[in-house]
Amino acid sequence: MILGTVKGTVYSTRKMEQLVGYKFLLVEPMYGSKKELIVAGDRLGAGIGELVMVTTDETVQHGLDAPAPMDAFIVGIVDQPPAIGK
Amino acid sequence: MILGTVKGTVYSTRKMEQLVGYKFLLVEPMYGSKKELIVAGDRLGAGIGELVMVTTDETVQHGLDAPAPMDAFIVGIVDQPPAIGK
Amino acid sequence: MILGTVKGTVYSTRKMEQLVGYKFLLVEPMYGSKKELIVAGDRLGAGIGELVMVTTDETVQHGLDAPAPMDAFIVGIVDQPPAIGK
Amino acid sequence: MILGTVKGTVYSTRKMEQLVGYKFLLVEPMYGSKKELIVAGDRLGAGIGELVMVTTDETVQHGLDAPAPMDAFIVGIVDQPPAIGK
Amino acid sequence: MILGTVKGTVYSTRKMEQLVGYKFLLVEPMYGSKKELIVAGDRLGAGIGELVMVTTDETVQHGLDAPAPMDAFIVGIVDQPPAIGK
Repeated sequence: MILGTVKGTVYSTRKMEQLVGYKFLLVEPMYGSKKELIVAGDRLGAGIGELVMVTTDETVQHGLDAPAPMDAFIVGIVDQPPAIGK
Repeated sequence: MILGTVKGTVYSTRKMEQLVGYKFLLVEPMYGSKKELIVAGDRLGAGIGELVMVTTDETVQHGLDAPAPMDAFIVGIVDQPPAIGK
Repeated sequence: MILGTVKGTVYSTRKMEQLVGYKFLLVEPMYGSKKELIVAGDRLGAGIGELVMVTTDETVQHGLDAPAPMDAFIVGIVDQPPAIGK
Repeated sequence: MILGTVKGTVYSTRKMEQLVGYKFLLVEPMYGSKKELIVAGDRLGAGIGELVMVTTDETVQHGLDAPAPMDAFIVGIVDQPPAIGK
Repeated sequence: MILGTVKGTVYSTRKMEQLVGYKFLLVEPMYGSKKELIVAGDRLGAGIGELVMVTTDETVQHGLDAPAPMDAFIVGIVDQPPAIGK
């Protein structure tokens, strides 16, 4: 999973019906290229500025109630930024 | 999912039969490397210049009526470019 | 999917039995890093120099007659290089 | 799989229920961009500083007892850093 | 698939049981970033210095006797480095 910070919300009125009911959040990666923001579905209620753990690709489906064309999903809200060992 | 802008249409007469009936749009990523354009299937009727949400890999299948060898699919048309928080 | 140009053929005598019968073509991406050539299976008869549409990962399987350990597959031959809108 | 060094632990109290029971470790890739740390689930008991082998995407599921929205998983602890041939 | 050269062997005594019986080889990509070495399972008996074709992600499973948490697998040994067309 990647760690990232929630930076905003994405609104889409015209979307696939399987995506109705999810909130879509813009997430900025904590490591690597911070410019590669992705859009992740959310059901945990993550807020702007929170650090989250995002799973990707087909593994997203294992966290949904029904299959949906969604390749990034917030699976955890991180308690605090991790300390990095030597 | 990634956000991107529709930049053009890709026409392919000789293609796999499972791809017949889809429109294929060239999408320029909004974040990260803008030069890495991808081709995404479309059924929502996205137009040139519109900002769209694209899902990738096997998750595409959950938005199709029948399985198809397609790894990028437009799942939403974004209402407006998202505001980025601090 | 990515767009790319067929640059050569890859021959492999010692290979997994599920890959027998496919032609493997070396494809240079049209967008992004042109140096990241990939090998894609082909059944459409794409020729050197042709512009093709390649699907990746597990979605490849939906275009095959039987499952095979293959993560890139040519699913369309593009009629002409796409025009890029503003 | 990628090789990487365990650099820390990620704690998440509010997370998907399918992720309860796993330890989540921050892994720094050994090759490529060392800055692109990822979070991988662990059941092998890898410790800080150990070199591990991480599998990604849907293949993670084949190492779990039950499906979970997790896209990176530690599948081996490496005996010693590999010697690189010419 | 990617093309790459076998550069070494990775030994892991403590690993998932589904990985027992495979040899794990360190593969240096031929195209793109040569520094992004990956670890791929092998059953074809590829040797150090040989050029191989590696499939990734879930497609690996279609080449295995039983499901395993493995996301890269050597599916062919290439006869000779491919000639690149204009």
